[in-house]
Parts: sequence; C-alpha cells; structure tokens
Amino acid sequence: MKPFNVVIDFSTGELSPGKKTVRRVSDVKNMFLDREKAEEMIKNGDPLVYEVIYADIPEEAGHLGHCTTIIYPGKVGKEFFLTKGHLHEQLGTAEIYLCLRGKGKLLMESTDGDWAALDMFPGSSSYIPPFWSHRTANVGQEPLIFYCIFHADAGHDYATIEEKGFPKLVVEEKGEVVLIDNPKRSR
Amino acid sequence: MKPFNVVIDFSTGELSPGKKTVRRVSDVKNMFLDREKAEEMIKNGDPLVYEVIYADIPEEAGHLGHCTTIIYPGKVGKEFFLTKGHLHEQLGTAEIYLCLRGKGKLLMESTDGDWAALDMFPGSSSYIPPFWSHRTANVGQEPLIFYCIFHADAGHDYATIEEKGFPKLVVEEKGEVVLIDNPKRSR
Repeated sequence: MKPFNVVIDFSTGELSPGKKTVRRVSDVKNMFLDREKAEEMIKNGDPLVYEVIYADIPEEAGHLGHCTTIIYPGKVGKEFFLTKGHLHEQLGTAEIYLCLRGKGKLLMESTDGDWAALDMFPGSSSYIPPFWSHRTANVGQEPLIFYCIFHADAGHDYATIEEKGFPKLVVEEKGEVVLIDNPKRSR
Repeated sequence: MKPFNVVIDFSTGELSPGKKTVRRVSDVKNMFLDREKAEEMIKNGDPLVYEVIYADIPEEAGHLGHCTTIIYPGKVGKEFFLTKGHLHEQLGTAEIYLCLRGKGKLLMESTDGDWAALDMFPGSSSYIPPFWSHRTANVGQEPLIFYCIFHADAGHDYATIEEKGFPKLVVEEKGEVVLIDNPKRSR
C-alpha cells in the first residue's frame, strides 16, 4: 500500500476522496425520546441529522481508520440531534475526536457502568479510552464538524446502544443545554 | 481510565495539557548534509528546528498516541528544516498527519525500498501506511503545524534513519522546492 492524502475542508467537513453515509431523522428515529415528534418531522421533509465521510482504509490490524462527521443543528422535541453512537466490537480500542467547527457534547459510557460527558469546540481533541461507548450531540446553532481516528479493525456495534440508549439525554431547557436522566434507562 | 480533552491551538500548535520535546540545530545537526553550516548556526544562537507536544496517553495496545508537531521555517544551507524522522518499532503500524498550518513535504521510505513524498497544506491528512518510515520538512515561510495520531504502543526507532538518511533531500534551488538524491545514500 502506498501513502496517500485526503483533503479535509474544516468549514464544511468534506473529506475527499471519501465515502459518505447519510442519516436522516427516519434512519435514526428510534434513538429519540419523542417518537411522535420524530414521525411528524419525517412527514415534513425528513431532515438530515448527520453525515459521516470515511477515508478508504483497509479494516485490518495496524491501520488507522479516519472520517469526518457533520452533525446538523436541530432538535427532535427538546432533544438535540445526535449520532447513533457505538461501542467498538474490539472493546479495548480507543478513539479520538478532533473538533473542527461548532459546539458539541460527547456522551460516553464505560462497560463497567460509568458515564462521562465532554464539551467539544474548535480545537478540542477528545480521548475516548478503550471500553467506552460514545455518541455525540450538536448543541450549537451551526454544523458540528469533527475528525475521528480509530483502529481500522475496531469494528462498530450500534445495536447495543440502540437497544439500551444512553444514561443521559442532551436537551434544551429554558434556553440552556442540560443533561437529564434517560427515562428508558431508569425503568 | 476516564475520557479527557486536550485543547489544540491550530495557529500556534500548542497542545494543552501536553509534554514538549524541543529540537535545536545542535540536537539534529547530523541529519543535515552541510555540517559546516550547521556548526556555524549552532554558534550563532542555535535556532529552534522543531517542537513536538505529546498528549499523556499510556504506551499500550488499544490506545492512540497523539501529538502536535511545529517545524519552524528555516534552512541549513539549502536544505529545509525537518524532523529526525522515524520508523515504528512495531513496523506494521500506520500513522496519520493532519496539517493545520503551513506548507510541508512528507518524505517516506518503505521497508522494501520504495520512497514517496506527499505535499502537506492546511486540511491535508496524510496516511503513512504500515512499514513506511517518515520525516517531514517545512518548505514554507511560516511554521508548519500538524497533528499526528499513531498506535500508542508503536514505539519509535530514530537510529535507523539517523544512520542511513533518506533517499531524497528537500532543498531550495533557484527559489524552488526540489527533491534531490541524497549523496550519502548513493555511495
């Protein structure tokens, strides 16, 4: 394999050449608390929630996967747009999120039951240690754009979080960004 | 281990909190072709060539090391300031360089004898595949700043390159940046 460049536009999040995955409200509706509101939004144009653009890297040990993520500003009810989130199939592998634009909350939960949140802002580089699942909310008024680097053979497990949700939700209350307990998790 | 942020200033390369390594001409004089000129520069103030600022990450499998590198503009004779360069002790591990500021040339050599060069510019993300050694020259008028991500347990072998040099040198000739054969390697 030969060395190569991809080019990243820090203001749009474009990564070129890259392969894009697009998520609209209809693709991720189950992760929001207010399902009725989500259905209404789907009928009214089904807005983009986020996009991920992957560089073409072999999914093999020794390689480093990388991608940009663009989360658009918006809410479903009072809950901010966010990514599905994932655990790595190889649980013991870290990930790095370098924020390029916007304002975010990175939510994480460890396999032994801890949770944590970090602020994302231009220049923040968040370290997601091995054994922490992670999902990201855009809590600002513009696109949240960040660059992700991970072990290329880490694998992605989306199902666990889809079923369980996260311990906390990121919502707007009285104009403030707050974390509240996820009622699905306290049942 | 808990998740944590470091903060990177894209215009200065500061990474905070971080641990800084500083290289002056006296620290890296052996890598330049024009040793006499290097000795003269050491007597006249021994200028900074580059700095590396590391985030505090365990050097263990599953973790991702990361750092910023700041290469100052300058030359020793006609040869541009550059990093010592290294191979990974674990040869089969990749590295990523995301350029934040300035203009660079990334030189690489594979363990089976190929060589390659990539341009670095703001937004370029260079993929250094497993089994390629790498060193970087600042070919511009301002600091060259980039963010590096690597397998935290990769290890660094500086000695091989210090002994052998690289197949190519990055020099200025008639105001142009050119790669020339390294006379030490063609002997």
